[in-house]
Amino acid sequence: MLALDVDGVLTDNAVYLGLVEGQRVEFKRFDIQDGLGLGLLRGGPIEVAWVSGRLSDATVLRAKELRIAELIQVPDGHKIPPFQALLDKRGLGWDEVAFVGDDLADIAMLRRVGVPIAVANAVDEVKALAMYVTRAEGGKGAVREAVTWLLGQRGEYDAAVDRYVNARSG
Amino acid sequence: MLALDVDGVLTDNAVYLGLVEGQRVEFKRFDIQDGLGLGLLRGGPIEVAWVSGRLSDATVLRAKELRIAELIQVPDGHKIPPFQALLDKRGLGWDEVAFVGDDLADIAMLRRVGVPIAVANAVDEVKALAMYVTRAEGGKGAVREAVTWLLGQRGEYDAAVDRYVNARSG
Amino acid sequence: MLALDVDGVLTDNAVYLGLVEGQRVEFKRFDIQDGLGLGLLRGGPIEVAWVSGRLSDATVLRAKELRIAELIQVPDGHKIPPFQALLDKRGLGWDEVAFVGDDLADIAMLRRVGVPIAVANAVDEVKALAMYVTRAEGGKGAVREAVTWLLGQRGEYDAAVDRYVNARSG
Amino acid sequence: MLALDVDGVLTDNAVYLGLVEGQRVEFKRFDIQDGLGLGLLRGGPIEVAWVSGRLSDATVLRAKELRIAELIQVPDGHKIPPFQALLDKRGLGWDEVAFVGDDLADIAMLRRVGVPIAVANAVDEVKALAMYVTRAEGGKGAVREAVTWLLGQRGEYDAAVDRYVNARSG
Repeated sequence: MLALDVDGVLTDNAVYLGLVEGQRVEFKRFDIQDGLGLGLLRGGPIEVAWVSGRLSDATVLRAKELRIAELIQVPDGHKIPPFQALLDKRGLGWDEVAFVGDDLADIAMLRRVGVPIAVANAVDEVKALAMYVTRAEGGKGAVREAVTWLLGQRGEYDAAVDRYVNARSG
Repeated sequence: MLALDVDGVLTDNAVYLGLVEGQRVEFKRFDIQDGLGLGLLRGGPIEVAWVSGRLSDATVLRAKELRIAELIQVPDGHKIPPFQALLDKRGLGWDEVAFVGDDLADIAMLRRVGVPIAVANAVDEVKALAMYVTRAEGGKGAVREAVTWLLGQRGEYDAAVDRYVNARSG
Repeated sequence: MLALDVDGVLTDNAVYLGLVEGQRVEFKRFDIQDGLGLGLLRGGPIEVAWVSGRLSDATVLRAKELRIAELIQVPDGHKIPPFQALLDKRGLGWDEVAFVGDDLADIAMLRRVGVPIAVANAVDEVKALAMYVTRAEGGKGAVREAVTWLLGQRGEYDAAVDRYVNARSG
Repeated sequence: MLALDVDGVLTDNAVYLGLVEGQRVEFKRFDIQDGLGLGLLRGGPIEVAWVSGRLSDATVLRAKELRIAELIQVPDGHKIPPFQALLDKRGLGWDEVAFVGDDLADIAMLRRVGVPIAVANAVDEVKALAMYVTRAEGGKGAVREAVTWLLGQRGEYDAAVDRYVNARSG
């Protein structure tokens, strides 16, 4: 399973806030190349989960569009209990999980997973725990790079690209 | 014909998502200098088509504003069949087309057209197919640069600029 | 008079487009430090005009907030006739105007004014006409830098800063 | 007390303006890593105040989300009188305050506080007054860096991080 933090990993850590017709509205900036990267995994053996330490409608909308298998959103960064429940439900162990994070709320996750990954804009405490640090920043291709790296480590990258391109060649 | 991918070429690959009054709203960031570049082609022999592998109202709005002759939007990156139909309708061959792309969904197009172009932020697989790679990134002048380069190759750039400036000089 | 192009000078050339409740909505990104720079001119001898080659509600909103004396918006870049009318109304000559621009639609203006200025992100044809090219990019402090430079040339910068700061010191 | 200017410190100085259903709407871009930094202070001895020289609904929304103790918003940069009133109410002296600013409207504050801090994108006049200048820009981690520096100066950073991480480890 590939698990991803949202803010700072799938986004550039920005939240755009405003009041529309008296209601709080929040926009987030997602990256299309990240979306295609997650599409490369679709139908393959690696499931994708998003694990956010914040509640946001924008995250729900993007996860739906990309048909993400599991979306966990918890307030104030308490990620371990719901993710443990997800692993139990799926019969997976922590060592079967790769997790991409950027900030202190990701440290407990990164300490437990088999493949801890940090983005270029992660805080030092997070980078210190990572097996791989992306060159790209969150929201600017970091997830695409993590997917490419992961498929490469498994020797599956070229086949995944060929399958994607061939399906769109005629 | 100059054909353009949209996300990552006419935009910086970002999609801004939020919920407004219970409805999904998506914003995209387009570049005004790109718009002027496409304006330089207006009334000339090179037609412009946009070919997106994603459905987006924001793309429709910008294409309308710039009076783009043809807009194709398909879900999930299957671009060849509708573009082939467009060429048939117009009586054009693939060798008469320049196409600007950035990602794997553009590879089938780039392999067929006469003038394949990649943006600075394209993935390696796309750059490897390109006759010209822009220095500018998508959404930050890449389309303007592609238009300038194309008009330059045809020896028409200076005349196009003079025509544009003179029409606004008095 | 200090006259400013809008897109690419007061903004980073971006237009954010989306559909909200079935209506086209356009956002633009303005810079707060630019706003303070224009505030330094308020009450002084230099009037400010904005001259845009595009129609945009966002521009109207920002001009109103900053109490800009004159706002001209014309479709498709035809700036000379309405600006000539403004000069006539105010009894000003072209040589009494500083103008900041970035693209081909600004060339006719830059050729006529006494003090032509280009932003860092201007196209080469515009930079070639400029007496001063800002180091800052449009929407990221270019207008603030142009105001600072202009006041400096007139020997009025330090006094303007002192006046602004002293008015807010107690 | 840690007091923060808003535009250019908690944001990248951008304001996104548009007309939605005939109403002026303003979005601002806030940084999630800054939010976690301010979360590190919660429950500790350092109170947080935001002091903006501009009125904005977006600022109110973000301050509420982060449970900021005090939010002062004044039009046109007149910050001293309301902040003096806040200090009087709390029984604090200017020397007990750290303030982070970026522009001329912050100079009067920076001259009075015990710990004046400037962001990387501050104007020269502001940097000249600062005891510490952040490497990060406003809206891109400058507040997080200021919090980290401040806790470090007090020898409380490691304990604050441990407390935050441990509370989310099981």
